[in-house]
Amino acid sequence: MQDFTVTPWEVSGDIDYDRLVRQFGTSRIDDNLRSRMKAACGEFHPMLRRDFVFSHRDLNLVLDDHEKGKGFFLYTGRGPSKGMHIGHLVPLIFTKWLQEKFKVNLYIEITDDEKFLYRREYSWKDIGESAHDNILDIAAVGFDPQRTFIFRDSEYVKNVYPLLLRTARKITGSTVKAVFGFDDSTNIGLSFYPAYQVIPSFFEKKRCLIPCAIDQDPYWRVQRDVAEGLGFHKTAAIHTKFLPPLQGVSGKMSSSAGQETAILLTDDEKAVKNKINRYAFSGGRATIEEHRRLGGNPDIDVPYQWMKILFEPDDKKLRTVHDDYLAGRLLTGELKAMLIDRINSFLKGHREKKKKAEKEIESFMYKGKLAKEMWSRTYE
Amino acid sequence: MQDFTVTPWEVSGDIDYDRLVRQFGTSRIDDNLRSRMKAACGEFHPMLRRDFVFSHRDLNLVLDDHEKGKGFFLYTGRGPSKGMHIGHLVPLIFTKWLQEKFKVNLYIEITDDEKFLYRREYSWKDIGESAHDNILDIAAVGFDPQRTFIFRDSEYVKNVYPLLLRTARKITGSTVKAVFGFDDSTNIGLSFYPAYQVIPSFFEKKRCLIPCAIDQDPYWRVQRDVAEGLGFHKTAAIHTKFLPPLQGVSGKMSSSAGQETAILLTDDEKAVKNKINRYAFSGGRATIEEHRRLGGNPDIDVPYQWMKILFEPDDKKLRTVHDDYLAGRLLTGELKAMLIDRINSFLKGHREKKKKAEKEIESFMYKGKLAKEMWSRTYE
Repeated sequence: MQDFTVTPWEVSGDIDYDRLVRQFGTSRIDDNLRSRMKAACGEFHPMLRRDFVFSHRDLNLVLDDHEKGKGFFLYTGRGPSKGMHIGHLVPLIFTKWLQEKFKVNLYIEITDDEKFLYRREYSWKDIGESAHDNILDIAAVGFDPQRTFIFRDSEYVKNVYPLLLRTARKITGSTVKAVFGFDDSTNIGLSFYPAYQVIPSFFEKKRCLIPCAIDQDPYWRVQRDVAEGLGFHKTAAIHTKFLPPLQGVSGKMSSSAGQETAILLTDDEKAVKNKINRYAFSGGRATIEEHRRLGGNPDIDVPYQWMKILFEPDDKKLRTVHDDYLAGRLLTGELKAMLIDRINSFLKGHREKKKKAEKEIESFMYKGKLAKEMWSRTYE
Repeated sequence: MQDFTVTPWEVSGDIDYDRLVRQFGTSRIDDNLRSRMKAACGEFHPMLRRDFVFSHRDLNLVLDDHEKGKGFFLYTGRGPSKGMHIGHLVPLIFTKWLQEKFKVNLYIEITDDEKFLYRREYSWKDIGESAHDNILDIAAVGFDPQRTFIFRDSEYVKNVYPLLLRTARKITGSTVKAVFGFDDSTNIGLSFYPAYQVIPSFFEKKRCLIPCAIDQDPYWRVQRDVAEGLGFHKTAAIHTKFLPPLQGVSGKMSSSAGQETAILLTDDEKAVKNKINRYAFSGGRATIEEHRRLGGNPDIDVPYQWMKILFEPDDKKLRTVHDDYLAGRLLTGELKAMLIDRINSFLKGHREKKKKAEKEIESFMYKGKLAKEMWSRTYE
C-alpha cells in the first residue's frame, strides 16, 4: 500500500496527501479555517487559496490567540546546502507573507549542525560556506530585519545549551528511533539533534507557528510531546506540499538528486531555458496536431503546476492557461516559454535582492532589534 | 564471578584491581615505569610509591614525549555536585603534583551538562550553584593559575561545538550502549554526552595525559577509538584506585550514598571527630585487652588506609603506625584520634585556601594566560 515515503531526509514516490495527513495525525485546512485566515489577513495567499498550503496543527488556536491580542510568533529553518533551488524558497515565501500580514517575530534556524552530522562527506568549512550563501538567499526573500532573527545553531548554542539539555532529558532513544527511523548505527550527534530543532519553538512564551513542508512534521510531534512538561506551548504548524521536481509531479525537488530535477537560484537564463525545455515533464501530446486535437493534461504537467504554485498569482490568468492547455489551444512549447520567462524574471529579481542582502544579514543575525535581544538572552 | 561493579556511575563491591586492569584493558604501572617517573619528576608521589596510582594507558609514550622535549598536557574533570568530599580531591591532588613536576598545561572540565542530564531531579540553578562551589574547592587545591583552564561545559560549548559534532559523527549508538551500558530508555542528551567528555583531550596537538579514578576509563576507550581518525593523539591515562568509604575498604566514597560514608570538605571539627569515631570501619579487636594481645589488621582498617593514601606522606612514620597497629601497641582509638587530627588540619588549610580562591577563579576560568588563549580559540 505504501507507495510513497516522507521523512525529513527522504521524500519519494507519488504522494497521497490525504493519506499523509491521516498518517502524520495533522489536519486538513478546511474552508472554515481558510475564511478565518482571510479575515485575519485581509487577503488570501495563492498558496492557501490553491490548497498548496494544505495541512496544519492548531492553526485555529493561533488565530484564537491572534484575535484575543495574545499574539504568536513564527519559526522556520533551513539545513545549509550547496546551491539552493526554487523549491527551497517555497515555505520561505509563504512565511514572509505571514510575517507581513501578522507583523510578528520570526526565527530562522540554520541547522548547520544537523547537516554536518547527516552528511559525513562535508567538512565544517563546506557547511560554513553553504550556510553563508544560503543565508543570503533567505535574506533576499525580504523578511523584516527588525523582527527576524536568523541564526546558525553552532553560533547560538551557548545561549540555548541549558534549555537544550532540559529538552534532551525528556526525549529517549526509543522516541527518536520511532519518529525518525534512527537505529543503533546512527551517530550520537544525529540522535541528539532533534532536541535542538525543537528549541526555537520555545523562544517566546507565546504560541509558535511553524510554516514548513510537511516532511518536517515529525520534529513537531516530538515538540508537542515535551513542550508542556517544560512549561511551553505545544507548537502549531502550517504545512505546504512539495514543489514537484522537473521530471514529474511526484517526490520533491532536490538538488542532491541531480542537476536535471531542480532550477537552482544561480541558474542563468540559458540554463533555465535549457532545463525547462529538456527536462520539464509535459502533459502535452506527442505531436502539435495531436495536442491541438486532443488537448493537454495540466494535472501532470510540471510547467503548469509550477505556474499554479509559484508563478501565476492571478487566478483568472491561471484559469485561462489551464483551459487553453486542456483544450489544445496552448501548446507545450508555448507554456514552457511562458514559464521560462517567469522563472527568469523571478531569478533576476532574486539575484538583485541577494546582492543587497550582503548588508542586511548583519541586521538579521546580530544587530537588528530582535537579533540584539536574542543575543542578550540565555534560555534555561 | 563478578562481585564488583565499576562504571562512571556506579562503583560497588569488593574491587579486585588486577581483574579490573585486565577487564578494562589498561596496564599496571610496573617498576620500570615507576623508575622513569621518578627520574622525570625527581621524586615519587606517595600515591605512586604506594600503588594507589596503579594503572595507566600509554604513560610510557607520555614519558617518551617528555624526554624528547615534545611535551604533553593534563586533563581532568569534575561532575558538579552538592558538597565535595575528600575522595573527590584525591585525583586532583595527584594532578596538581604532576603539573608542578612537569610544568604543563592543565584543563579541568566541569561537566555541568552530564550531571544535569543524569540527575533529573536537579534544576539548572542547582547545578550552577554546585558548579561554582566545586570550582572553588578545585581552585583551592593550588593549581598554576596561568597554566590551568577550568571551564564549564555549558559556557565553553560554543568554542568546541564544531569539533564536538565531528567527534559525535564518529560514535554510534551501539558504541555508547556497549561502553556505558545505555539503552533505548536513556535520554538522547546522556547518549550524546560522551562526545563532549572526549573533547578536552584534543585541546592541544600534543599527547594528553588524564589522571583520574579508574571508573572514568570507559570514556578514554571511546576517545582512543576515534582520536586518530580525527587527527589527534590517542589519550594517555593514569588511574587511581578509590578512596574507601568510612564503612569499609570496598566500593568508593560517595556523598549521595549518605552522610556516614564520607567526610565532606565542609565538615567541621566536631563532625569529623564524630564520623570517624562512629563510622570508620576498624580492623581492631573487640576489646582493648584482645587488641593488645592479638593486634589489629591494618589492611581492612579504614583509618589506616586513609593515612596511607592521603594523610601520612612519610613512609617511615607510616611503617611505624602499621607495625604498631599490627602488634597491638597502637589502639583503634589512638589511630582514629591521629586521623581526626590530620583530617581537621587538612580541612582547615583547605577552607582557608578556598576562601582565597574566590579571587583566583577569575584567572582559572577567564583571565589567566591559558584561559585567555582558550577563549580566543574555536575547535573544528
